Amino acid sequence: MVDPRVSEHARILVEWSTEVKKGDMVVINTSLDGYPLALETVKWVAKKGGSAIVLLNTQEMSKAYYDSAPDEFLDIFPEHYYALLEKSDVIINIRSPENTKGLSGVPSEKIMKRNKALEKMREVILPKRWSLTVHPNNALAQQANMSLSDYQDFVYGATLLDWEKESENMLKLKAKLDGKKQIRIIGVETDITASVEGRTWVASTAKHNLPSGEVFTSPIETTVEGKVYFDIPFLFNGVEIQGVRLKFEKGEVVEFSAEKGEEMLEKILNIDPGAKRLGEIGIGTNRGIKRFTLNMLFDEKIGDTIHLALGNAYPQCGGTNKSAVHVDIVKTMKPGKIIADGEVIQENGKFFWEI
Amino acid sequence: MVDPRVSEHARILVEWSTEVKKGDMVVINTSLDGYPLALETVKWVAKKGGSAIVLLNTQEMSKAYYDSAPDEFLDIFPEHYYALLEKSDVIINIRSPENTKGLSGVPSEKIMKRNKALEKMREVILPKRWSLTVHPNNALAQQANMSLSDYQDFVYGATLLDWEKESENMLKLKAKLDGKKQIRIIGVETDITASVEGRTWVASTAKHNLPSGEVFTSPIETTVEGKVYFDIPFLFNGVEIQGVRLKFEKGEVVEFSAEKGEEMLEKILNIDPGAKRLGEIGIGTNRGIKRFTLNMLFDEKIGDTIHLALGNAYPQCGGTNKSAVHVDIVKTMKPGKIIADGEVIQENGKFFWEI
Repeated sequence: MVDPRVSEHARILVEWSTEVKKGDMVVINTSLDGYPLALETVKWVAKKGGSAIVLLNTQEMSKAYYDSAPDEFLDIFPEHYYALLEKSDVIINIRSPENTKGLSGVPSEKIMKRNKALEKMREVILPKRWSLTVHPNNALAQQANMSLSDYQDFVYGATLLDWEKESENMLKLKAKLDGKKQIRIIGVETDITASVEGRTWVASTAKHNLPSGEVFTSPIETTVEGKVYFDIPFLFNGVEIQGVRLKFEKGEVVEFSAEKGEEMLEKILNIDPGAKRLGEIGIGTNRGIKRFTLNMLFDEKIGDTIHLALGNAYPQCGGTNKSAVHVDIVKTMKPGKIIADGEVIQENGKFFWEI
Repeated sequence: MVDPRVSEHARILVEWSTEVKKGDMVVINTSLDGYPLALETVKWVAKKGGSAIVLLNTQEMSKAYYDSAPDEFLDIFPEHYYALLEKSDVIINIRSPENTKGLSGVPSEKIMKRNKALEKMREVILPKRWSLTVHPNNALAQQANMSLSDYQDFVYGATLLDWEKESENMLKLKAKLDGKKQIRIIGVETDITASVEGRTWVASTAKHNLPSGEVFTSPIETTVEGKVYFDIPFLFNGVEIQGVRLKFEKGEVVEFSAEKGEEMLEKILNIDPGAKRLGEIGIGTNRGIKRFTLNMLFDEKIGDTIHLALGNAYPQCGGTNKSAVHVDIVKTMKPGKIIADGEVIQENGKFFWEI
């Protein structure tokens, strides 16, 4: 018998995240390791009257592609795949890589050339009901420095939630923040302010990311002032960066340091002018995520954290900062305080409705 | 390192069978067990400048679908899958089921209803460059009563041939047979004649089936006269039928018996009027196939055998017999003789150019 949590995960993907109904055309993307969740998802889609087809993609296959395809073929556009997505209503992506370093060794120019050729693919996916989730496997557990069984407990603890109730809280937070002019974050070695006037706060209610649990916006990028210390590490291009300190003046980073990976942090800040400015301010709300695991899909949603992203802003928030990167960095808010136009939003990890 | 025979198998699929070239849109269908061949095929397609996407389908997924989908949803047509195939140039099917009995237990009415709903799919595939092959795994080896390593030797011995040279022989045979009026097959307990006047002989040169190796036509179904004894067993709906004897008058089976599975043979003959008549006469040419394995993809191509099919004829041969079934039955031709309009085509396993 299959782990009942895998089936419950599939049910949430199909019923809550993508709301599959009779006649829906569904694409499920999986690796080999993702197969158990793909199989349960096929069952739930069938139950709802959707038509599922399953695409297999592994890091090994991508590596084989890059090793074999001559450079002049890398920009060939897969018209048949595009036609498939165009006719689909729902796209479910199951991430469960057999090896998180499977593409190391592929020259980044090749990957960039290929990604550029595939840009049109994003455009056809984004307006659909699409969802991204993780199926716990050894490669992901290893990256999180955990055993597989502990990692399974971690993932399901974060994912198998009552998303209706979670969403109520997120929408409560969004309702409070929409219309506010200024946000201020105070904490350990931290006091930073930004104007969010006219911007929209988005509640991430597990319709796209599963797990989810964050409310975010893009600040007016020239108005960020103050300093911030991030205690939670993160990966960029496989390099761990930890203990980041940033100082902003007129929206731009004017001082920076990191306890680990400072060289990579410097590289990020110098990618383009937009990488020195904030593209996002986000507030994590998922209290099922008990620890960081160096996987941003989870880390930025940890309940009682905030995250700021250097780089590109979100158009759906009214954001205008432009950059080739969007680098989230996470900070614990116990102790700490989030204030909006003088009102306390969160204090020492308790939201305004809990105080 | 991967078994070099898997890579060679992929090369033949891509270079010979489907002739993938720059810009081709390619679909690869595989099970989990077929993954090693799918991976090598991805490499060869990339090398040639094709765009491959890989679809995963397992017996377990099909079973899950049938168990979960309410009956009234079984005729929903997968428009997105159709759009994918419509935009594809090449479709490669890798058969490597994890369990050849994976769909037993699914009511056949369900499967028939689903297949009927998917009929349009065949129409879009047939005009394309499509190919069907087998990746040897334990389930197929078990069905053939063999160990995996022996079965691998068997499959690659039949498949990794010089198909250009094989095709030359098949085309020589076709050239000899096209235009002939009557074919006669003589062997153990066998003397049967049929008119093939005006019909076309087809050389199966591994463009669709890999392995291949047969030259076949559809006889004028009312002209078959005489008796035939088939020494090689075959499966129908999972039941083994062996030692079949048939007697034809005016094209129709008037007497029949089987040493094993006679009841099932009777059922086949009574499916419809066309099932009592011949839809095909085929001559196997693949001398790499050293034994029968209860898998018709191989058995009907065994060098120095013939096969007759009860039921539906091939339109591309000019065939006119109609039936819901097409049941191939195979006979060894050592000793034996194939004669066309008085000319010896094959005698005791030697073709006319070898005598």
